[in-house]
Amino acid sequence: MWTMPPVDTVLHVLSLVAAAAQAMTAALAAGRRSMDWVGVCLLGCVTALGGGSLRDVLLGHYPLVWVENPTYLAMTVAAALVTIAIARVVHRLQLAFLALDAIGLVVFTIAGCEVALQLHESLPIVIVAGMITGCAGGVLRDILCNDIPLLFRSELYASVSAVTGAIYVAALGLESNHDVATALAFAVGLAFRLLAIRFRWEMPKFVFTDERR
Amino acid sequence: MWTMPPVDTVLHVLSLVAAAAQAMTAALAAGRRSMDWVGVCLLGCVTALGGGSLRDVLLGHYPLVWVENPTYLAMTVAAALVTIAIARVVHRLQLAFLALDAIGLVVFTIAGCEVALQLHESLPIVIVAGMITGCAGGVLRDILCNDIPLLFRSELYASVSAVTGAIYVAALGLESNHDVATALAFAVGLAFRLLAIRFRWEMPKFVFTDERR
Amino acid sequence: MWTMPPVDTVLHVLSLVAAAAQAMTAALAAGRRSMDWVGVCLLGCVTALGGGSLRDVLLGHYPLVWVENPTYLAMTVAAALVTIAIARVVHRLQLAFLALDAIGLVVFTIAGCEVALQLHESLPIVIVAGMITGCAGGVLRDILCNDIPLLFRSELYASVSAVTGAIYVAALGLESNHDVATALAFAVGLAFRLLAIRFRWEMPKFVFTDERR
Repeated sequence: MWTMPPVDTVLHVLSLVAAAAQAMTAALAAGRRSMDWVGVCLLGCVTALGGGSLRDVLLGHYPLVWVENPTYLAMTVAAALVTIAIARVVHRLQLAFLALDAIGLVVFTIAGCEVALQLHESLPIVIVAGMITGCAGGVLRDILCNDIPLLFRSELYASVSAVTGAIYVAALGLESNHDVATALAFAVGLAFRLLAIRFRWEMPKFVFTDERR
Repeated sequence: MWTMPPVDTVLHVLSLVAAAAQAMTAALAAGRRSMDWVGVCLLGCVTALGGGSLRDVLLGHYPLVWVENPTYLAMTVAAALVTIAIARVVHRLQLAFLALDAIGLVVFTIAGCEVALQLHESLPIVIVAGMITGCAGGVLRDILCNDIPLLFRSELYASVSAVTGAIYVAALGLESNHDVATALAFAVGLAFRLLAIRFRWEMPKFVFTDERR
Repeated sequence: MWTMPPVDTVLHVLSLVAAAAQAMTAALAAGRRSMDWVGVCLLGCVTALGGGSLRDVLLGHYPLVWVENPTYLAMTVAAALVTIAIARVVHRLQLAFLALDAIGLVVFTIAGCEVALQLHESLPIVIVAGMITGCAGGVLRDILCNDIPLLFRSELYASVSAVTGAIYVAALGLESNHDVATALAFAVGLAFRLLAIRFRWEMPKFVFTDERR
């Protein structure tokens, strides 16, 4: 099904939708901390575009996406402002947001792998680039909100990103058909994330206490 | 008046003064958290030079200002150390610091726009580059002090930076005289910031609470 | 003694050991905050490789070490996972860890100076590059753990890094023999750090309180 329209177009549209969704969840996080409107927009931009920016800076891949194409900036700002207007409704759409966020995680991961592949990076770096693109925006959001990043404490999020990237890379290695690899990684990654949410799968935690520090 | 000496020289001097002022306010923030002298110097450097560094890294504009010209580093370290020596006096100069900080915000913003213009970035990116240069140093300071960035919660700070950048870009577009554009953006931006402080203008806040998270 | 095997080989081995040690101390910090296994690995990687990455990004020195050589990534992840397995034993090895961490600080500093020298940076920047490489990983760890960076509040850590870099640069200037400079900087830096730990040397603190903020 996902292979019927050109997969790249689908991915691009999904990635815009995902960026908007990440900006909106960041805006809600900002609202919980009573930030002002500017803070809401900034937090939205950093969350939605921070992962890709960090990847590009670490790989030396210039110009950054939003520098080359400022529409992304405008869209995330718009998404953040819309969130302020419709916060009461958003509240009831929590399930939709969880799904959009999961799509964002998977789509950003695949897009990050794609960039690293075009730079001819080695396979581990391709997967890491996917993980940075998918996860780092949320980490930056949590740092700016003065929280310990959710990513470090909880559900299968980075793991979903790693699995998605690994499937994408493996499928490309076996199939060499770009569209099939994308569709496969997308489907498995999204299913994995949604199942993890539904059944509250969690990584084991490492709890360490020492009497004296 | 501002156009009588070469505007670029005035800007350069003001930008050194502004960097020193930002390092000094950062040093006071460090002192409130009982950091040691090294921490005071590091926080001063990150605050004064962090905004320009982040802009250059995001735009791929190498070498960074302080790498090419380490005098900046020496000056911010000196400003931080001086602050330790004269902390009791500084205390009474709060108004002067607010003014210097406002000058710093506006001057850094214009300098950031200038760099992006030289790189032939698009207009939105020019304004964003100005905002990053003017505001990001304070955000880094607040992250290192383990606070939610002031920028996100309070007065017109990022907004002043955005307005300053927009005026600068608009004036350049209309006048094409670099000095007039600089002087105009400086005057309006500074007045805006000082009025915002004086009359406690604030951005509306987005307050969002949900029963369950 | 240190000059008997090729110094660069010794340094390289020590730097691998040091990276592993830093990943392990970061893993313990993660365990104190009950992070999950993924968080433990991520925190280990950021701590062990973050300083060098920040240096390379600020100096525009691409590709980054771990991008070119993903073995570093694998090793830090492995070190973090091993820490989970042997946490109880690690507990008793606190002294060994302090020593390994001190070695890491000094070795990373020298390696950072080396990189900046190869880029023909000026002497202050060479020393700053060493300090960033030696210290920034721990700062990133503390930010992600939502603490005020230890570096800013406590023992001689950044100072040891600065002294090590200064000795290295000075020795190179006087001797021009790379091995002697390395050995000298390593020995003095390590001794300085260990003495600072042993005798609880501390930087003076800057304590500033104002009635109103």
